[in-house]
Amino acid sequence: MLNIGIVGYGYWGPNIARNFSAVEGVKVAAICDNRQDALTRAKKAHPNVDIFTDYRDITRSNSIDVVAIVTPVSTHFQLAKDALKNGKHIFVEKPFTANVMEATKLIELADKNSLKIAVDHTFLFTGAVKKIKEMVDDRKLGELYYYDSTRVNLGLFQHDVNVIWDLAPHDLSVMDYVIKEKPIAITATGIDHFGRNLANIAYITVYFKSNLIAHFNLNWLSPVKIRMTLIGGEKRMLVWNDLETDEKIKIYDKGVSVKNTESVYNLLVEYRSGDMWAPRVDHTEALKLELAYFIDCINKNKNPINDGKAGLRIVEMLEASDASLRAKGKLIKL
Amino acid sequence: MLNIGIVGYGYWGPNIARNFSAVEGVKVAAICDNRQDALTRAKKAHPNVDIFTDYRDITRSNSIDVVAIVTPVSTHFQLAKDALKNGKHIFVEKPFTANVMEATKLIELADKNSLKIAVDHTFLFTGAVKKIKEMVDDRKLGELYYYDSTRVNLGLFQHDVNVIWDLAPHDLSVMDYVIKEKPIAITATGIDHFGRNLANIAYITVYFKSNLIAHFNLNWLSPVKIRMTLIGGEKRMLVWNDLETDEKIKIYDKGVSVKNTESVYNLLVEYRSGDMWAPRVDHTEALKLELAYFIDCINKNKNPINDGKAGLRIVEMLEASDASLRAKGKLIKL
Amino acid sequence: MLNIGIVGYGYWGPNIARNFSAVEGVKVAAICDNRQDALTRAKKAHPNVDIFTDYRDITRSNSIDVVAIVTPVSTHFQLAKDALKNGKHIFVEKPFTANVMEATKLIELADKNSLKIAVDHTFLFTGAVKKIKEMVDDRKLGELYYYDSTRVNLGLFQHDVNVIWDLAPHDLSVMDYVIKEKPIAITATGIDHFGRNLANIAYITVYFKSNLIAHFNLNWLSPVKIRMTLIGGEKRMLVWNDLETDEKIKIYDKGVSVKNTESVYNLLVEYRSGDMWAPRVDHTEALKLELAYFIDCINKNKNPINDGKAGLRIVEMLEASDASLRAKGKLIKL
Amino acid sequence: MLNIGIVGYGYWGPNIARNFSAVEGVKVAAICDNRQDALTRAKKAHPNVDIFTDYRDITRSNSIDVVAIVTPVSTHFQLAKDALKNGKHIFVEKPFTANVMEATKLIELADKNSLKIAVDHTFLFTGAVKKIKEMVDDRKLGELYYYDSTRVNLGLFQHDVNVIWDLAPHDLSVMDYVIKEKPIAITATGIDHFGRNLANIAYITVYFKSNLIAHFNLNWLSPVKIRMTLIGGEKRMLVWNDLETDEKIKIYDKGVSVKNTESVYNLLVEYRSGDMWAPRVDHTEALKLELAYFIDCINKNKNPINDGKAGLRIVEMLEASDASLRAKGKLIKL
Repeated sequence: MLNIGIVGYGYWGPNIARNFSAVEGVKVAAICDNRQDALTRAKKAHPNVDIFTDYRDITRSNSIDVVAIVTPVSTHFQLAKDALKNGKHIFVEKPFTANVMEATKLIELADKNSLKIAVDHTFLFTGAVKKIKEMVDDRKLGELYYYDSTRVNLGLFQHDVNVIWDLAPHDLSVMDYVIKEKPIAITATGIDHFGRNLANIAYITVYFKSNLIAHFNLNWLSPVKIRMTLIGGEKRMLVWNDLETDEKIKIYDKGVSVKNTESVYNLLVEYRSGDMWAPRVDHTEALKLELAYFIDCINKNKNPINDGKAGLRIVEMLEASDASLRAKGKLIKL
Repeated sequence: MLNIGIVGYGYWGPNIARNFSAVEGVKVAAICDNRQDALTRAKKAHPNVDIFTDYRDITRSNSIDVVAIVTPVSTHFQLAKDALKNGKHIFVEKPFTANVMEATKLIELADKNSLKIAVDHTFLFTGAVKKIKEMVDDRKLGELYYYDSTRVNLGLFQHDVNVIWDLAPHDLSVMDYVIKEKPIAITATGIDHFGRNLANIAYITVYFKSNLIAHFNLNWLSPVKIRMTLIGGEKRMLVWNDLETDEKIKIYDKGVSVKNTESVYNLLVEYRSGDMWAPRVDHTEALKLELAYFIDCINKNKNPINDGKAGLRIVEMLEASDASLRAKGKLIKL
Repeated sequence: MLNIGIVGYGYWGPNIARNFSAVEGVKVAAICDNRQDALTRAKKAHPNVDIFTDYRDITRSNSIDVVAIVTPVSTHFQLAKDALKNGKHIFVEKPFTANVMEATKLIELADKNSLKIAVDHTFLFTGAVKKIKEMVDDRKLGELYYYDSTRVNLGLFQHDVNVIWDLAPHDLSVMDYVIKEKPIAITATGIDHFGRNLANIAYITVYFKSNLIAHFNLNWLSPVKIRMTLIGGEKRMLVWNDLETDEKIKIYDKGVSVKNTESVYNLLVEYRSGDMWAPRVDHTEALKLELAYFIDCINKNKNPINDGKAGLRIVEMLEASDASLRAKGKLIKL
Repeated sequence: MLNIGIVGYGYWGPNIARNFSAVEGVKVAAICDNRQDALTRAKKAHPNVDIFTDYRDITRSNSIDVVAIVTPVSTHFQLAKDALKNGKHIFVEKPFTANVMEATKLIELADKNSLKIAVDHTFLFTGAVKKIKEMVDDRKLGELYYYDSTRVNLGLFQHDVNVIWDLAPHDLSVMDYVIKEKPIAITATGIDHFGRNLANIAYITVYFKSNLIAHFNLNWLSPVKIRMTLIGGEKRMLVWNDLETDEKIKIYDKGVSVKNTESVYNLLVEYRSGDMWAPRVDHTEALKLELAYFIDCINKNKNPINDGKAGLRIVEMLEASDASLRAKGKLIKL
């Protein structure tokens, strides 16, 4: 039986608490928040759980095995470090840390203490993303040409981070999971409309060494909600529309091949347009699967797919995007 | 009665011929193409029109008043120059010219000879764009925040130009028409998948001096066709989905206002979410309206909205995009 | 403070319990079910509520003021009668009763004892239906021409009722609420595919004295989920798509007028096609509003819009539909 | 070489003329209409065709082999009879005739004179319907459960026929083609809003001997255009949305099976929800294929699938629908 302590009971914390409660071999033992109303809600939903206002009552508790850190990103490092130093495995809300340095130190600390880190890249555990991963791994799409994601809506403006740190971790973590090749450079453009020095619209391009490009359209100011990713390959193309209820993934047996490229005037473009196919995807709540998986990784001493290194890779891209954004689209090598 | 000569009878030429034929006070008098099958088609559709294989039979003819140039962009300058030198008004397919230099020279030549230039920015004459222009001019959207366009499909690869020169003129000309403020800088990223040195996917960001940003997603390799532009303003937001039959324009009475920005911790974000409204738009064929309008401009000695200078502004942005694309997103001042 | 007793804690009962708990001046005091697992769930969610297996512990309890009956329709009459006889107001799941006779008796009993009945016609309390009602009442649609509803999906087959009794109460209650005029006759067709003598597909036509017709397409065997109602009027037309998140109601400024009808050969049909408008609708949970409204009706001795008579009118249409269905579409007068 | 004479050059006639012109081994030799403007249009589009105002100049001409009858249905019988009597094959606009009697006589006459009849059931020649037919014939859907069609829009009111005779022939001919089993009875309900005694909204139910039902929702007064047919089978279900550009047909690997039907309380409903698949369908213009096919049938003395008997079957259902509609849904045996 692993005892879980949860630090942070704001918007996402209750989901962590509820889903950890449902995992076999796990007990949600303690919840910490420094806001009284959050603790009242926590007590009502989980009457038998210990309630604290100081996170150290969790990170330093003898009876806690795993600390879930569900607080703003600026606090992750301190909390995570304290937990790891005191021998706790950690489950950390995305993005992993506020910068690459912090992520690197936490990974080292966990390694030294033989502890597990999981970053809450929830999307990796959705039926849709698992299906995409399977398609790509089975080379159903052939060589990948592009990954183009749009995540826009009339959004919850974050107080402390820009739209990149808020929205991009979802898509970057999916891209990082689906595409084995690692990116080599990033450019980002964007704008802050409200004088906060926090962009609320951003566009990111990610370069790879191979014949592949990725792009992310992030916008907190869109009148319509769009959650769409196109993945184009040599053999097939895929559309992931996360707002669809039943047909989240559509695979198009479409493509183009260009012959006789030695001369543009002899160029012969051949189209192929075949069937479309929407495979059934699993609808199990991703967070539930993710937490059960992390517990399983701890018990069996396996490395999670969403480990600290995965978290670090995302933070590295976020940091590079920020740097490029400040320099109006300057290419930042990774 | 104005006599029209059409140079180029490939994909778009027949539409120009058919629509000019329907304009009052105009006669399609001559068609030129250097491909025999094109001339056969022209003769069949327009039995009373003179047919030529040498464009100079049109540009230098005494009986021709207006030359429509519907050929690849690389040939525009030579054809247009010859027509203008011989006292013809010109209607030129978009993009206007292959570079800024050519466009500038043609504008000067036309001015010197008191001739009119119209560039085929057809979209300006659609009911949808006219409605958008009206909305923006009437300040229905308030101060503009962003212009975000997606134009992707499994596309006709062009032999001689990249995806920017093929697809972006549509959207850039609409942006140029709708937004009075002129852009100050551009970045573009993209990729060529087929070793042709002609990008088939590109992403363009356009900067303005004011609190406004524009972005263009252009892709010849998408399994799905998307023609969508979001325009966000302080007061309202607009979605233009050109694939919708009846509701091409949707105006959302939505917005966000941020108070107390002196401190991010006191930040108060206020959402507003009201009605949506899809105004009826005119469905008259845009090309027909555009050609009749150009004839009217010639007859009344008015300057067309899609004149050589408008054409030049688009070419300037295309040229800058190309330069940025080659330099992996380097900021190019306009 | 009114004490609520809930009989039935299956699929819908928990929603009733949760929403009643949130109403001011109300206490969920007792829950009854004859299945042990239901009671376990009830106890967990509502630790302070009394739990019973015999409904009479609620209907005859001195401390209960209102009985919510959330059981299969075949049991409604007995439970409701017992509750009313013992001086309780009743909130009854839809459809109100299994036949007209039962409904009539319950209404009489409630009247005699000065008690309130509310039937759970939840849709009347949605933002969408309230907006439709407002439109119709304000004569925004003009004279009504038709009401055409489609409610199909791969459905939960009910064990005890056919698709009419399961799905039609939703739409019939909305129609009954929105349209003041009462129907005069009904025909229904349909089919049972599984030898249960319970139709799983049915089509109902409802006749009115005026120039109005209603139709309902009900299907438990559809691969796609559709929840769409078209309401056509002389002046405007309305589409209610309940699966839309943000634009559930669309009002079309469209119509047709036919002139010179004395001779079909001189017939002049005039179309009108104007703007479309999607008014913002309230998203508050309908059940919460409905329960608070019922409590308010009890406290202020007002008659609910979803009273026993409303319930009776729906049951009358259901009964007539069944009769017509059995007689292969025979017209049944109401 | 077969010479074609076309009687009627209103809305549809030009399409017949244009497509017959493109068929190998065929010459459009004569066009007849009694309206001068129609003849002017005909002459302009087909300069070498003979133009007549009296149909007998076509039906009795020695040089005509096939007469295409593209006139209002009330005139079909007289024109067709005259053509058949004079040894011409006939291609007749749908619906075949104004009643069963006429259809029967024409079939007899054609048989006696060894002539071919084709009725313009264009939809049978679309890629979508051919794909549906193939699916059903290959038993991909299993035993058929229902055929449910919706064909509504803000429609062109016909002067001489009601909405059933205008819209239903499309869907009835598809159903007749796709489903081998013949219907046994029909009910129809509907309404005329404009005092013309011509229903502008109608709902038709078609009964079969087997476990199958069909329904048709026809409406000239809908603010939105819907062209959707659901076909449910034991093994799979199909949605045909004719307004989709690329994915007209979607096949759902979904179903339901009900076990232990001896007792409703032991009833076990098993759902199955699998992949969705949108097969590519041919986009060739259906009318072109239909006309070429008819010429091939004539040349090879084959019976067309859309022969007079197919036309008769549709007319029989239209007549029965009218009879039922007049009798407010009375069941009419076929």
